[in-house]
Amino acid sequence: VVEDLATVDQMAAAISQMHLRGAGLIGAAGGYGMYLAASEAASSKDFESTLHAKTDQLMQTRPTAVNLSNAIHRQQAAIAKETSPEKKVHTAFETARLIAEEDARFCRQIGEHGLKIIQELAEKKRGRPINILTHCNAGWLAFVDYGTALSPVYTAHTHGIKVHVWVDETRPRNQGAMLTAWELGEHGVPHTVIADNAAGHLMQRGEVDLVLVGSDRTTAKGDVANKIGTYTKALAARDNNLPFYAALPSSSIDWTMHDGLKEIPIEKRNPDEVHFVQGWAEGEIKKVRLTPEKSPAQNDAFDVTPSRLVTGLITERGICEASEGGLFKLYPEKKETARR
Amino acid sequence: VVEDLATVDQMAAAISQMHLRGAGLIGAAGGYGMYLAASEAASSKDFESTLHAKTDQLMQTRPTAVNLSNAIHRQQAAIAKETSPEKKVHTAFETARLIAEEDARFCRQIGEHGLKIIQELAEKKRGRPINILTHCNAGWLAFVDYGTALSPVYTAHTHGIKVHVWVDETRPRNQGAMLTAWELGEHGVPHTVIADNAAGHLMQRGEVDLVLVGSDRTTAKGDVANKIGTYTKALAARDNNLPFYAALPSSSIDWTMHDGLKEIPIEKRNPDEVHFVQGWAEGEIKKVRLTPEKSPAQNDAFDVTPSRLVTGLITERGICEASEGGLFKLYPEKKETARR
Repeated sequence: VVEDLATVDQMAAAISQMHLRGAGLIGAAGGYGMYLAASEAASSKDFESTLHAKTDQLMQTRPTAVNLSNAIHRQQAAIAKETSPEKKVHTAFETARLIAEEDARFCRQIGEHGLKIIQELAEKKRGRPINILTHCNAGWLAFVDYGTALSPVYTAHTHGIKVHVWVDETRPRNQGAMLTAWELGEHGVPHTVIADNAAGHLMQRGEVDLVLVGSDRTTAKGDVANKIGTYTKALAARDNNLPFYAALPSSSIDWTMHDGLKEIPIEKRNPDEVHFVQGWAEGEIKKVRLTPEKSPAQNDAFDVTPSRLVTGLITERGICEASEGGLFKLYPEKKETARR
Repeated sequence: VVEDLATVDQMAAAISQMHLRGAGLIGAAGGYGMYLAASEAASSKDFESTLHAKTDQLMQTRPTAVNLSNAIHRQQAAIAKETSPEKKVHTAFETARLIAEEDARFCRQIGEHGLKIIQELAEKKRGRPINILTHCNAGWLAFVDYGTALSPVYTAHTHGIKVHVWVDETRPRNQGAMLTAWELGEHGVPHTVIADNAAGHLMQRGEVDLVLVGSDRTTAKGDVANKIGTYTKALAARDNNLPFYAALPSSSIDWTMHDGLKEIPIEKRNPDEVHFVQGWAEGEIKKVRLTPEKSPAQNDAFDVTPSRLVTGLITERGICEASEGGLFKLYPEKKETARR
């Protein structure tokens, strides 16, 4: 579905109701949302108080992906530098464009760096397809382009390396079964959808070579918040001595946080996403109920994978250890922010 | 649905198409299936060859639960002892009844032994509800009565101990969301349904005190085959220093197997169970498709949790370590079989 979003209300609804989702896309939407906020503020009686209220509205749409607050803060700083409402609106538009373009560029670079990991595995395995397991959707549907976890996969595929992707269906919202499978199919990348429960079993049987996931927020020490279930996939990778990488642009790093488990806010979503499943039936999208009417459900949307379980982080500047030391080697200019 | 099964064909279809499921119930159905086989053999031209063919038919319905082959072998031995077809049929009926009664009795005893674990936790937690996570359905819908993993829960509930069960939905067939939640609701046991992906996250947050699962086949060394996804729940329990128990009657122990990962056959079921989800919509059971038409899926139905991740086994004779030594303390008479 292609949807026009012309007001802050529409943008806020699109983000919170997940008409769009994925760390990078939420960030880009936050950027353009702030442009809409500036426009609406410019035609209001009080620019500052209107902008303030609309900024809050956007900030509250999704709590876990730091790209949103990073984009909003960047816009606030850019808007504050200009003096007239007209210039503020113009700058907000330019900044939104920059954030979106940067997202696409960073994702392309992540693909190039991540390619090396897949190339090395392909050499070791002497041409047999490399089996990559991914969780949720961190492809071009989740970013302005390319994606994060899937970007190295697409780059490898383009380079003629044989890859096969195990796609976790990713309950409760099935982003794997519905989005990742579709994306990979459109790209012609061989893949197989599995229940989330099957990932550990396939690793035990030697049917996985590499785990690649995205991240909604990564702390300065390398803890990775990502779609619920990522943590247990990381545990299974560790138990089977398999590499587990998180791929993320620096816009997903929260340099102010150090302990992911204690500090990253985990979104609780509507339990109906557990009670019901949406899918296709007779050419329409329909909902079926899985649970008895009287049974409650709980729906935590993300979890935190501690850095000790993460083999490395693939960023737009290269691959590093999931640690403060590793991240500071790539982002020395962030030492100040992180230690504040 | 209450279904009459009057022929071997009907029984075989009921087992393989999962009109009935669960280790104990598959065993009991295998027992009665052999009674039907003996009856049909008695009215055929050649008792032995008919019985042989029908035994094979039953044996091939489900590969992972050892209760099926245990029940069939027990029936074969009982039937072989009798001389006339009439007596063979009579003995087969009596043996089927014994297997079913034994299943219920063993499950009740598992509840009494498992109760101690919950009682101890309740004392430690000073009256706050004990949070028990379970995977799949190992309650009275999966056995002749009581169940295995849920039997201690029901016993604790009856004893007035406050329990709350986290019910993994258990994709791809949703036995948790559909059966366990319903069973617990009928029993008045507080519970909450969660996505399979959420189990690790809840353990990280201190919201789980104990993991209790059933088993479809346990080796003489304590490796536990159970519903796909059990292994990653065990990994999460270990990572968070939480007790992980498998509850099983001795009819689920395969004394001839020692290495669960190498030896236990893992059933691959129809990928459509991953492609589609069944649930209620407008008062009817309907199916929706989750995956794109062109995306393949794979459906491994069970996995093996190595004994090193299992805190203990709860059997009808008591609780033991998940090891050869632990099992032989409870079942010394099995040393012979295990070492053959």
